[in-house]
This record gives sequence, structure tokens and C-alpha cells, in this order.
Amino acid sequence: MSRIRPNIEAMAGYVPGEQINDPSVVKLNTNENPYPPSPRVFEAIRAALTGDRLRKYPEPLGDTFRKAAGEVLGIDPDGILIGNGSDDVLTILTRTFVPEAGTIAALTPSYLLYRSLAQIQGAKFAEIPWGEDWQLPEAKAFAKADIVFLPNPNSPSGTSVRIEKLSAFAAKLPGLFVLDEAYAEFAEADGVPLLKSVPNLVITRTMSKYYALAGIRFGFAMTTPERARDLNKVKDSYNCDALSLTAATAAIRDQPYYAELRSKIVASRGRLKIGLSELGFRVIPSQANFVWCRHAEKPSKPIYDALKARKILIRYMNYPTDEGLRITVGTGEEIGKLLSELRRIV
Amino acid sequence: MSRIRPNIEAMAGYVPGEQINDPSVVKLNTNENPYPPSPRVFEAIRAALTGDRLRKYPEPLGDTFRKAAGEVLGIDPDGILIGNGSDDVLTILTRTFVPEAGTIAALTPSYLLYRSLAQIQGAKFAEIPWGEDWQLPEAKAFAKADIVFLPNPNSPSGTSVRIEKLSAFAAKLPGLFVLDEAYAEFAEADGVPLLKSVPNLVITRTMSKYYALAGIRFGFAMTTPERARDLNKVKDSYNCDALSLTAATAAIRDQPYYAELRSKIVASRGRLKIGLSELGFRVIPSQANFVWCRHAEKPSKPIYDALKARKILIRYMNYPTDEGLRITVGTGEEIGKLLSELRRIV
Repeated sequence: MSRIRPNIEAMAGYVPGEQINDPSVVKLNTNENPYPPSPRVFEAIRAALTGDRLRKYPEPLGDTFRKAAGEVLGIDPDGILIGNGSDDVLTILTRTFVPEAGTIAALTPSYLLYRSLAQIQGAKFAEIPWGEDWQLPEAKAFAKADIVFLPNPNSPSGTSVRIEKLSAFAAKLPGLFVLDEAYAEFAEADGVPLLKSVPNLVITRTMSKYYALAGIRFGFAMTTPERARDLNKVKDSYNCDALSLTAATAAIRDQPYYAELRSKIVASRGRLKIGLSELGFRVIPSQANFVWCRHAEKPSKPIYDALKARKILIRYMNYPTDEGLRITVGTGEEIGKLLSELRRIV
Repeated sequence: MSRIRPNIEAMAGYVPGEQINDPSVVKLNTNENPYPPSPRVFEAIRAALTGDRLRKYPEPLGDTFRKAAGEVLGIDPDGILIGNGSDDVLTILTRTFVPEAGTIAALTPSYLLYRSLAQIQGAKFAEIPWGEDWQLPEAKAFAKADIVFLPNPNSPSGTSVRIEKLSAFAAKLPGLFVLDEAYAEFAEADGVPLLKSVPNLVITRTMSKYYALAGIRFGFAMTTPERARDLNKVKDSYNCDALSLTAATAAIRDQPYYAELRSKIVASRGRLKIGLSELGFRVIPSQANFVWCRHAEKPSKPIYDALKARKILIRYMNYPTDEGLRITVGTGEEIGKLLSELRRIV
């Protein structure tokens, strides 16, 4: 023995988007917020930089954060699970609900991590293609799944399924329904109102996008207090550190600051869509902080390469059923630079 | 469905030591370092508090930390796996090597988390009692284990197995041998020299104890580069955040500061042992930053309760085969206070 599990040996491993530190590169590839987090986040971290906070274990369940998030979102704090990024939350959900040889189902094209989570758990992965125009397929396609992961808005498309459609869909699922709302704060609606009426629902959120805190790793789930208690048994006891908890709490309390960033990003998203369309790209209307597009005539990969050579990093994505370019909505200046380089390229 | 896995439903969940924020309580229950982390840790975190560091994803594999740790410990940086606390590392090891219905083996009394890891994975848990005087039992007792977890020094006993005995033991194990060195920096020797000769060895470390950074959640594993690559497939892509990576890197680079703390703690440990012995306690000689003891005549639980009523928090532990008090080595002042209160109690 001393042998790795065959499912782990066989898997390729999830490949995250390229992370580069070169400040001369315009980084539009992993949907970070182009603006810094709230000044209150910095103040709160500085105030927490004491010997006692660093040397002692943090709050195991993150009660201070849970109380703040419960107030802001109008939900029961006991129904919140804290995570070391929303990837940690997705991992905890998988380990709690999916046995070896169980099934995870997700749509395709979508977030590629769901497949990795199934592979790590030794579970089957059922990939169901999106319907035309990114509409939800019939729920019966998901009948065998222990968990259905649905990102809303979806990546890479940026499209949203209307909230009204989700409760009917969830009601037909025999398994857990995880609405991955990593980008929901940029959309016109979110699934929080469904928490009261949809018993098999878990909503996951991240502080990496809207809250401009990808560096501190914080995410959370919202569900019933009973289910949160079960999930807490599976998470590592101290899965969120003292500074991340502090930063996340300060961020979620400063809604006015982030509403302002949102306005800027939504405006830039509109400008990006128009600019790309004028250059001959077909752009899917986006509810997120990125757009998914393809040039009407030119293949995507060479455009990606040409931009990279000009120090603009976007994401080229190649799915069996679709391919294209996913571009994060950067600052106004970054979008201007991208569009002017694209003008030369296409 | 939407049903929790039966193994998760059935388990109680790991109960970590009580975390309290009241500064008037002398907290000697979870083996934190009583001294603050290195001033360089604070400097490094302050320097990292920029909008770009917080809003962007951190280094996925922690290459800067791996390079620093590799230099300090004299090992190949590619053989290092970073973790969100060493609990995260133990979780990753379990998920990589233990299938559902596989077996985790550990000694008892020992770290209770190993049982929880088996329960979460849906694996069997084989508990093997320590030999007399905390000696290692025959390796054949562990023959069916996919992973053997051996904390060295052990908790709660504080005892160490001599390094010379470990390679012979490991050679007889068919599975992975995880030497959990959470407290090794306080001991007279550690297992790092074995990495070159013991192929089934993984050593885990934490920054929570020796490095006084329980609040930032950072741990790591040392093994072969090949095995580290496999483990990296199972960890969350960004399992360590930008500030924790910064803090851990600054800490491991400042060996002189921590050597000084170590001297103080080892001196206090000696004083604690003598003081407890004088009060009629039987104290196991410790290689860690805590001692395990029991009064020769009085039961442990009432002593724990009486100390708690006097705002001194230690750990009362009750195993099927053993019970006693685990006391973290605090500052000289804290140890003085503990001993003077104990004098009144016993």
C-alpha cells in the first residue's frame, strides 16, 4: 500500500487561472474586483494585528461574522457556514452529502471545479448541457445526483437563470440543490428569498469577487440551521483565520462602499459589451463581473495569445460544446486599453 | 435524498478546546504559545496590506513560503505542501490516501481529530493503545491501515518516540506513515532526517504552537516531490491566504526569535514539572509545550473545575484507558499563578 487512491492518481487536478504578480500586466482573467476593498477592511485588520489575536485560535464558527452577515442579508446567523473561500464551502458540501460512488451533477459549460470535487470524492460526475440560450434543462436530467451545483450567474457565460424558475426546479430534485452565487451581487436578483421556501437549498457566496478580497480567502453558505450544524461537523475546526474573519466582517458591514464599486463595474460592463460588439464580437449579456464572447469571424485562441503578448491577460476557454473568451470587467482605464489593443488585433 | 451521508449524521463532530476572549482568564488549555509572534511577522503583514494583495488571489502553491521553509529545514521545497493549519494538511492526506471503508490507525490516547477524519471519510478507525511508558506497540497492529497517524511528541502525554525507532517502525507499515510533528520544535529531536530514507513518510508541522500563529491558520507537510504533487491535486487551489502566507514566511525566517521563546518555554516547563510534583502530581516528562499529569490522590475533574472557577483554564481529558490534566506551558507569571492556586486547591 502507501498507495494513493486510484481516483486521485487518475485525475488531472483543477487548474486555476494564471496568477501573476507583474503590475505591468492588465489582469482580466480570474474575475477579481479591479478596485481595492473597503478602507474599513484595512482599518479592521490593522486593529486586529495584536500578539493575542495572532497567537490564539480564532472563533471556530465565526460567530461575529455570522451575526453581521445575518443582519445584512436578513437571514438566521445559525444557518450560515463559514469557509476558507467558497471552494472550501463546496468541498464541505461534497464531503457531507456525496458518498464514494455517489453523483455530482452540474451544467456544462460551467465552473470546472465541480468535476474535480467529484473526482476527489470518488464520485460520478454527470454533466448536463445548458439548454438553448443558457436556459435550464429539465430537472429530470439531474435525478440521480446527490448534489446539483448551479452557479447563478453562471461562469463563463455570465448568464442568470430567473429566480422564479429556480424553486420549481429545486422542488423536482431529489438531492441537495447548491446555488453557487459567487457573482450574485453583480446580478439583478439573488436566491436569498428562496431560503425560506426551498428545503433542499444551499446558497454559497464568496468574498473574492464583489468584496474584492480574493487574497484573504473567505466564503460562506446559507441554509437551514440544522444543515449548517451538520456541515460544521465536516469543516476543519478553525477553517477561517482571525484576520480573514476580521476582514470579511468589516467588508460585509460596509455595503455603501461596495454599492459604489458595483455601479462602476456595471457601467464598465456595459461599455465593454458595446466596445466588443463594435469590434465584431458576439457578446452574451452578462449579469456578472465578466463577459463571455467570441469574434464573429476570428478564432478565439489567437486573440487571447495576441492580447497576452501585449500584456493583457484574459481567459481562453475551450469546452467540448463551446469555446470563447472570458474577460473580467476591469477599471475604466483597463477596459479602454483592452479595447484599443483589440482594435489593432482584429 | 437531499440526505446527509450516514457516517456524517452518526458522528458527534470533533470538539476543539474552549476558545475564550476574556483577557482576565489564564488560558492554558489549547497549547498556544504564551508569547507573541516575531515582530517581523507584524512588519510583513503590515507591508502586505495593499489593495492589490487583498483583492487578488494568492500564490496557489505558496512558492515563496516553500522556498523559505526549504532553506530553513534543509529540504526540497517541491516536497512541501502548504495547508490552512495542519488540520487542513491532515484532511488532504486522508482524502488522498484513504478510500471509503479504508482504515486510519492511530494510537490512544492521542489527538482526537484522527477519529473524526476517519468518520468524515467513511473509513474505519483502528485505535491501538500505547505500550507501557508510552512506548510504540508492534507495527503489525497497524497492518491494515491506509494511514497511520503518529503525533511525536504525542498529545496529551507530551512524550516522544525516539527517532531511531521510527524508521524501523515505518518500514513495517504497508500504508502511509504520517508523523504529526505539531510539537516537534519543543522536543530534543525531529524526524526531518528520516525524509531521505523512509519512502512512506509524511511529516506534518503547524505554525500554531512554536511559531505563535494559531490565529493565522498555517501548517505544512514535508514528503517527496512526487507525493506533494498528488496532494496538491486534492487541496483547495487557494487554501492559504495572502496574509497567512506572508506571516508564515516571515516567521519561519526568524529562527533566532523563536529559539529565544523556546528557551523560556523549556525553562517554564521544567519549573511547572517541579512545582506540580511538589504538590503531589505525577507528571510525565514532556517534550512538548504542555505537561500531562494527575494528582496521586485526588481525582482530576474537580481540580480542573476549581481552577476554572479561579479563571485558570486547563484541559481535563478522559480517555477510556487514561484520564488526567493537560496543562499548556504558559509564561513564567502564568505558571506561578497556576501553582499558587493549585496549592490552595489540593
